[in-house]
Amino acid sequence: MSYLAVGVSPGNVPVYNSTNLKVNDRRLRVAELVLRCLICGLGVVAAALVGTDTQVKEIFTVQKKAKFTDMKALVFLVVANGIVSAYSLVQVVRCVVSMVRGNVLFSKPIAWIIFSGDQVMAYVCVAAVGAATQSAVLAKLGQPELQWMKICNMYDKFCNQVGEGIASALLVSLSTVLLSCVSAFNLFRLYGGNKNKTTVASRW
Amino acid sequence: MSYLAVGVSPGNVPVYNSTNLKVNDRRLRVAELVLRCLICGLGVVAAALVGTDTQVKEIFTVQKKAKFTDMKALVFLVVANGIVSAYSLVQVVRCVVSMVRGNVLFSKPIAWIIFSGDQVMAYVCVAAVGAATQSAVLAKLGQPELQWMKICNMYDKFCNQVGEGIASALLVSLSTVLLSCVSAFNLFRLYGGNKNKTTVASRW
Repeated sequence: MSYLAVGVSPGNVPVYNSTNLKVNDRRLRVAELVLRCLICGLGVVAAALVGTDTQVKEIFTVQKKAKFTDMKALVFLVVANGIVSAYSLVQVVRCVVSMVRGNVLFSKPIAWIIFSGDQVMAYVCVAAVGAATQSAVLAKLGQPELQWMKICNMYDKFCNQVGEGIASALLVSLSTVLLSCVSAFNLFRLYGGNKNKTTVASRW
Repeated sequence: MSYLAVGVSPGNVPVYNSTNLKVNDRRLRVAELVLRCLICGLGVVAAALVGTDTQVKEIFTVQKKAKFTDMKALVFLVVANGIVSAYSLVQVVRCVVSMVRGNVLFSKPIAWIIFSGDQVMAYVCVAAVGAATQSAVLAKLGQPELQWMKICNMYDKFCNQVGEGIASALLVSLSTVLLSCVSAFNLFRLYGGNKNKTTVASRW
């Protein structure tokens, strides 16, 4: 038991504060569930849009086919969004079970696992979107100084679908970033024992 | 004043716990300072390595020059590392001043500002490294399906220096990720009031 609880018993905790905290906790858990569902759905959409994207063009009787595996960054994007969707599905189940049971997350090891998972997912998603966006810009505008020609004037339908996939992946990234803040809050508030030092240390 | 402090005065806080917390706090602040100095130094190195990188090649009496502005991802990398270095320098000054004065961060608005800044820097750095790595892979290996030829066999010195810059930027990214965890800890432990709910809510 933390020394924080010295002199504090349920009896002398004001009721309105406890209720407020419960309401805030519930809101936070609903927000977490909504974000995880959003990530799961949009991640599948992003992976499907990019992963199923192909276009065939005939140039002087030669058939040329554009597919997402032509660009390593798009493969990375599809894999990253597939992984984050599967991870989010598992987390959605955990959230629903804990909400149904009325459990509150007070276990540091579990909070650490969720925090670490969410952090990894957020950074992987952001890196994947960064790399894919760079590829998309190259495909759209080319890089004449390096003799890399733009290809979107030839594969217009392919490029549009990749663009939609990247937009969806961007929303996934923003949601994972928000979620990593929520799980950081859920973890680090468990280390709130330093609050008492306001009595012995100077304030900012 | 939080209801957490009800019944808790410096007099009934065990001394060993308070000392332990102080030691841990000092270690954390030293780690934060070291990380910020590392980010500042390595960020400057990364920006300088990529930003000053040029190579001139003569091909059939025609002089061709490779420079970092030929790739948008490298420009993004230089700008991102420049910004994160300047930001870290400001934060290093803040850390040193607060350590000299012996202040402890207990102000939520300031903790929120630092947390937000660190989060933005971490994600910008990771996105920049993702995009630059994608460009580097293209330059090294090319993308024959799209008729994008590799250029590193021609501009070998240029590519090596960019590689060193990206390696340095990767270290900056990892440090900003660690630092964003530290500032999340510094912020969210201030919201540790829910701990008392162990007495009324079930544990995981």
